[in-house]
Amino acid sequence: MRRIFVQGKIHPEIQVGMREIPLNDKQIPSLRIYDTHSIDVHPIRSTWPKPAEGLTQRQAAQKGIITPEMEYAAIREGVAPEIVLKELAEGKAVLPANKKHPECEPMIIGSKFLVKINANIGNSALGSSIEEEVEKMLYAVKLGADTVMDLSTGKNIHETREAILRKCPVPIGTVPIYQTLERGDLCWENFRDTLIEQAEQGVDYFTIHAGLLKDYIPLALKRTTGIVSRGGSLMACWMQTHKQENFLYTHFKEICEILREYDIAISLGDGLRPGCIADSNDEAQFAELKTLGELTKIAWDLGVQVLIEGPGHVPLNKIKENMDLQLELCHGAPFYTLGPLVTDIAPGYDHITSGIGAAVIGMLGTAMLCYVTPKEHLGLPNKEDVRTGVITYKLAAHAADIAKGNPQALLRDKALSRARFDFRWEDQFALSLDPELASSYHDESSPSTHSKYCSMCGPNFCAMRITQELL
Amino acid sequence: MRRIFVQGKIHPEIQVGMREIPLNDKQIPSLRIYDTHSIDVHPIRSTWPKPAEGLTQRQAAQKGIITPEMEYAAIREGVAPEIVLKELAEGKAVLPANKKHPECEPMIIGSKFLVKINANIGNSALGSSIEEEVEKMLYAVKLGADTVMDLSTGKNIHETREAILRKCPVPIGTVPIYQTLERGDLCWENFRDTLIEQAEQGVDYFTIHAGLLKDYIPLALKRTTGIVSRGGSLMACWMQTHKQENFLYTHFKEICEILREYDIAISLGDGLRPGCIADSNDEAQFAELKTLGELTKIAWDLGVQVLIEGPGHVPLNKIKENMDLQLELCHGAPFYTLGPLVTDIAPGYDHITSGIGAAVIGMLGTAMLCYVTPKEHLGLPNKEDVRTGVITYKLAAHAADIAKGNPQALLRDKALSRARFDFRWEDQFALSLDPELASSYHDESSPSTHSKYCSMCGPNFCAMRITQELL
Repeated sequence: MRRIFVQGKIHPEIQVGMREIPLNDKQIPSLRIYDTHSIDVHPIRSTWPKPAEGLTQRQAAQKGIITPEMEYAAIREGVAPEIVLKELAEGKAVLPANKKHPECEPMIIGSKFLVKINANIGNSALGSSIEEEVEKMLYAVKLGADTVMDLSTGKNIHETREAILRKCPVPIGTVPIYQTLERGDLCWENFRDTLIEQAEQGVDYFTIHAGLLKDYIPLALKRTTGIVSRGGSLMACWMQTHKQENFLYTHFKEICEILREYDIAISLGDGLRPGCIADSNDEAQFAELKTLGELTKIAWDLGVQVLIEGPGHVPLNKIKENMDLQLELCHGAPFYTLGPLVTDIAPGYDHITSGIGAAVIGMLGTAMLCYVTPKEHLGLPNKEDVRTGVITYKLAAHAADIAKGNPQALLRDKALSRARFDFRWEDQFALSLDPELASSYHDESSPSTHSKYCSMCGPNFCAMRITQELL
Repeated sequence: MRRIFVQGKIHPEIQVGMREIPLNDKQIPSLRIYDTHSIDVHPIRSTWPKPAEGLTQRQAAQKGIITPEMEYAAIREGVAPEIVLKELAEGKAVLPANKKHPECEPMIIGSKFLVKINANIGNSALGSSIEEEVEKMLYAVKLGADTVMDLSTGKNIHETREAILRKCPVPIGTVPIYQTLERGDLCWENFRDTLIEQAEQGVDYFTIHAGLLKDYIPLALKRTTGIVSRGGSLMACWMQTHKQENFLYTHFKEICEILREYDIAISLGDGLRPGCIADSNDEAQFAELKTLGELTKIAWDLGVQVLIEGPGHVPLNKIKENMDLQLELCHGAPFYTLGPLVTDIAPGYDHITSGIGAAVIGMLGTAMLCYVTPKEHLGLPNKEDVRTGVITYKLAAHAADIAKGNPQALLRDKALSRARFDFRWEDQFALSLDPELASSYHDESSPSTHSKYCSMCGPNFCAMRITQELL
């Protein structure tokens, strides 16, 4: 397994990092795969040409300009740069890359491309340190996280984010309202100053809960679990106290103008996502979604790239309605969902309850899946939880890619299954999502990797070994 | 949490064990849930009246007789016994209960009822002991396995099974061809003697690979991973060596006559299930499925209850075709699937890749889901793997029940979410699928269970706590 570099054709100055896995297979002698894991993070974008007039990627695409960032993302996806340009121009994809985050290796999020995953990290008042959070970020990226959100709400928010950004090769997202409270009262001025502070540091996308209007609060208070979005609950509290409309909504154009300057994407937060099966697909949720659709057009008109955040807890039979309505109400902007969790009753296993929903909604067209770890509903995830969350979501995203017929994805499954059938254990591990874990599980009870069986069936009952005798 | 007993009305001698969870909730003061975990296993069925003329449950149902077993299963499901009778009579459900397994607490498997899960245990030549296997069985049943298959292929197969059966309150399934090899050559006579030996012990259902015909072998040998069913590969080898048709097919009526005598259900094995994404939904798989449909009618005509086994590795977009074809070709007999696994590239996480497929196919109508543990493809599962496999499948089955609108299932989610919103941590744990794990994850980093927040968000960022201030 090694990191290789593919040079750009339109922009020869770009060198796209990919992973190459050499295989002991005549038909598939090696496999190149998408690689989030840069071992040598440095400000690669600082020397690339910038689009004139400070255009955002969206604006450049609309003018027909293929930026280095677009070509970089296209090479990673194995598609023509024109496809990246077209999807960006139409708002069906986003390329989050703050001009002040030169370390970021460009990537594209949209339903035409590989399904992406996000890993949430960040401290809380009850735990973690800067070192631990940087370590979680590096680990998540090594395992394949496509973006990372720093959701810190505890101490040293600015310093934690700075340490993360300077070492991070993937886009970083945040929820600026959390840090706003550090500045004192929740209000537009403090929020705006927080936006600018984080924009200057290089955050690539912001979750902003601008679609939760005052009128929707009573709809949410009828629910079984009310409001389960932190940002959503804070804004609802502010509106109820001040008897005013959401200032993120009333100041939305000003927000977009700040974001455009840095080319930060906006991720329109779903403050009213359902927190349990009983609240799924309800009036509160869909009222907010409709408003997110209106805000999408405003942001687009101002040149800002847009993601739409989605639920939450949704039973399997109601997932398609979410995807269909999102496409209809939000004009094709990429959907970015948290799971969804398909049942409420498995705390400790919510990476799985949500991975099920994530794979299904990914197949239906969701562009990015926000991971959930085993600690969801119970506590702050540690490094091992990050691993479980990332791998679970990589497999869910990959299952969606397979279902969508992505040729890169299909080839990897084929290569691994050929290795499995040939008892090329080392190739099988190298091609798997978590080689270290697969190898350790094997070695726990099975004989050496030269054996044509494992301890599950033993030598005389291995179906694949028996099949080979028939050939 | 306590075990309670509900008395039968048609058959007052039956006492149906259920679990009752007392809650600190005025609206839902307690919840009764389906309970596979008998703490006092004894031969409960030995004193129950038997249907005249040694009828099987299927035959009794066809004559309109509600047996104690049917009423027992109906009470567990919360439905009228007439529904159990109707589904059994039509072959759309099975009630596996060997007359010689009196310890078995009757249960019903069919798409009209709660989705069931099976846990595979059993030793291999490379590991495990009788004690370890009994312990795995008890643990699986405690966590909610609805049936257990003993797939032992190593030492002491008879004694292991005997120890398991006498302590087991759920139906036990086996794959008799494995032990047949202990008697010497693979042949009809040795197979028949094995069937009778296991039938006498009390095995409740047998997997028999009678649908893998000689003509289908070339179809399987073209594949990426050939034949991945142990029983299937053994029969293919026998056919190729002897140049004869599958003796399980040619002796099918004799097999059914043995099974009818004990009222053992037949689980028609899918010897040609696909072992990788590339082989899914292929000619080999569907050729065998068609034959399973023909065999279903023969077994039904002889009074035998029938399950149909299904794949395997299938991408998300091809799952529905499996369910649709199974219903069409197998005349509505209940489907019993292994996963399916929706990608090949996650060894170490195949409980999840398969749990995704299982939840989806369960929603579409599959009656029982055979678990897959994290050790799949790598080694023999240990007790901890059994736990992970069972809970993953309980949540997948439950997600399917929720999607199908089962009122019992919906109420449990609602009760747990109400507990979550009220910060009734102990109620939340008691209602969850793995209370011990949920509680330990919480206690790892969160404050006492009297706190209205956890370490994920801390006191000032808990959305549910903030919402409560709005009420």
